[in-house]
Amino acid sequence: LRRGQALRIILPFYGGMKASVWKVSVKRHVIGLDLGGTNIVGAVVDDEGQVVAEHRTPTQAESGAEAVLARLIETGRALLSSPVEPKPCAVGVGSPGGIDAETGRVVFPALNIPGWEDMPLAARLSAALELPAFADNDVNVTALGEAWFGAGSRYRDMVCITIGTGIGGGVVIDRRVHHGANHFAGEIGHTSIDLNGRRCVCGSQGCVETYAAAPAIAESGRRLWESGIPTRLREMVSAADEVTAADVAEAAASGDAPCRRIIESAARCLGAALANVVNILNPECIVIGGGVAQAGEALFGPLREEVRLRGLNVATENLAIVPAALGERAGVGGAAALALQRVRGCGTK
Amino acid sequence: LRRGQALRIILPFYGGMKASVWKVSVKRHVIGLDLGGTNIVGAVVDDEGQVVAEHRTPTQAESGAEAVLARLIETGRALLSSPVEPKPCAVGVGSPGGIDAETGRVVFPALNIPGWEDMPLAARLSAALELPAFADNDVNVTALGEAWFGAGSRYRDMVCITIGTGIGGGVVIDRRVHHGANHFAGEIGHTSIDLNGRRCVCGSQGCVETYAAAPAIAESGRRLWESGIPTRLREMVSAADEVTAADVAEAAASGDAPCRRIIESAARCLGAALANVVNILNPECIVIGGGVAQAGEALFGPLREEVRLRGLNVATENLAIVPAALGERAGVGGAAALALQRVRGCGTK
Repeated sequence: LRRGQALRIILPFYGGMKASVWKVSVKRHVIGLDLGGTNIVGAVVDDEGQVVAEHRTPTQAESGAEAVLARLIETGRALLSSPVEPKPCAVGVGSPGGIDAETGRVVFPALNIPGWEDMPLAARLSAALELPAFADNDVNVTALGEAWFGAGSRYRDMVCITIGTGIGGGVVIDRRVHHGANHFAGEIGHTSIDLNGRRCVCGSQGCVETYAAAPAIAESGRRLWESGIPTRLREMVSAADEVTAADVAEAAASGDAPCRRIIESAARCLGAALANVVNILNPECIVIGGGVAQAGEALFGPLREEVRLRGLNVATENLAIVPAALGERAGVGGAAALALQRVRGCGTK
Repeated sequence: LRRGQALRIILPFYGGMKASVWKVSVKRHVIGLDLGGTNIVGAVVDDEGQVVAEHRTPTQAESGAEAVLARLIETGRALLSSPVEPKPCAVGVGSPGGIDAETGRVVFPALNIPGWEDMPLAARLSAALELPAFADNDVNVTALGEAWFGAGSRYRDMVCITIGTGIGGGVVIDRRVHHGANHFAGEIGHTSIDLNGRRCVCGSQGCVETYAAAPAIAESGRRLWESGIPTRLREMVSAADEVTAADVAEAAASGDAPCRRIIESAARCLGAALANVVNILNPECIVIGGGVAQAGEALFGPLREEVRLRGLNVATENLAIVPAALGERAGVGGAAALALQRVRGCGTK
């Protein structure tokens, strides 16, 4: 007898208690696992995205595929023993690289874990934890988390980008991640804004991440530090080569004019790329996360303006462009959303 | 008793006749209507995309919304009286401009029909023809037709573009058109390949249709004609200002070197835009229609090369870039696909 069936049986007899029975009965817990290069973070998450238990352990990527998998399983077991009711009914895991979200198998390993390629990640977790398990790429999982529990939760169609070393993206259509034919949809960082522009590591030219990701912003910050132009960066770090994109974002957020200009320039480039995304997909919402988003209005102001200037009016009129809301919970929250979305048999949402 | 129910009842008794009973019973006919600026073309189409009856009448847009609607209804009635079995069970209509595909209402009229805005196109057709009716934008309908019956029929996720006065696009995900928040998804012609490039009527800069649509190609053809460089264009038309994009495409297809260079230049620009589409959506197939596609390999050769150069390897490796297959049937075939996809109650596919 499954929970859903029990519910349908109980309800007619407890008419007066319906509300509370319903609330208790449909509440689900799942386990979200975030496999990163440094740490494995796991959490028990409820169906409203609240973290009710957490567990973390070092990834130790160099120890190899089986050892990393063992630590993922150990994290899952530790969380399964948390005193929560109902018990978690499914597991979701997000990890960098290409993952076939249908089968939960690693197809392009991005983490440097020996033997990780072709790992049937979801199947192995499922067998060990005796629960349904699902896996997807970390950026897709973050997008799903924002769509279900975060800044995009009011929208059916959204795009989520994360500005870091590169610019990752996840495309959410009808509250589901769009994966594409080879699990490579959402590579917005590698869309070009200038066909004759800067060379990119991917082989193309003018990819927006060569202008607007953290390395480009840090480089502009270093040049600013060296130029002698008065800037708070000189108070924040003691040498040009210590300047990070986060420093530039922080200085811009606090009103430093030269850093604001760096962020604005990145925002204009990002705006050109996002206007293309808007004209192709016409989403309701674009969510922007990653360290550079900490620049706040110094980034979002010119970004919104540029998208409105370049995107088709009808498609930009009611478009929301907002910061990510989940922050550090994005990884586990998104992995939990993946599990909640895919699992059958422990209630419905 | 519906057809599907009858089938389930009949089958156990006619085991030996199963194949033929099945074939006759699931065959559906629908009406596809293509409302264009000049003509209304209608057809009875079967569930394999075959046109079994056709009817056409002038649009006479200037006569106003009610008169145009009356001619659409008249076309539908003429087709309903065709001697086909089973009788058509639904109606689909495609038309330029913005159409809310869920409600079938005109939201941004592109045809110059007085009073056309806000026309509840699907509802009025449905009431008059006493059949379920569905409406969508003509480019989306063309994409759906290619996805169901044409060059994209082997694929679940595809993008279909039509090169004409502009470059229209339709995004098909999981064999359904992706419409976006404001029915404006797929405006690939207005994606920019150069953020500081040519000014576009839409207000943006560097939109690919300013480089690769028919007017840009015709303009290059006219300059070529005037330049005195030997070209077949001089045999085809007697004055520079008579050169059309179709002439340039035809000359390129027949091997004229200067015209091949014009088409190649357009193909390179289009390739840059489509590489962006590929990196965002990772489709299985891109279908290209419209007059310029008649240039054949003069267009498709450099286009495929450019998309492979610029798109991410994994996403371009197995990507098919193919010419549209439906040709003149695209409008009615796509409208029929829309009806077949949306209708309930006359068999399933």
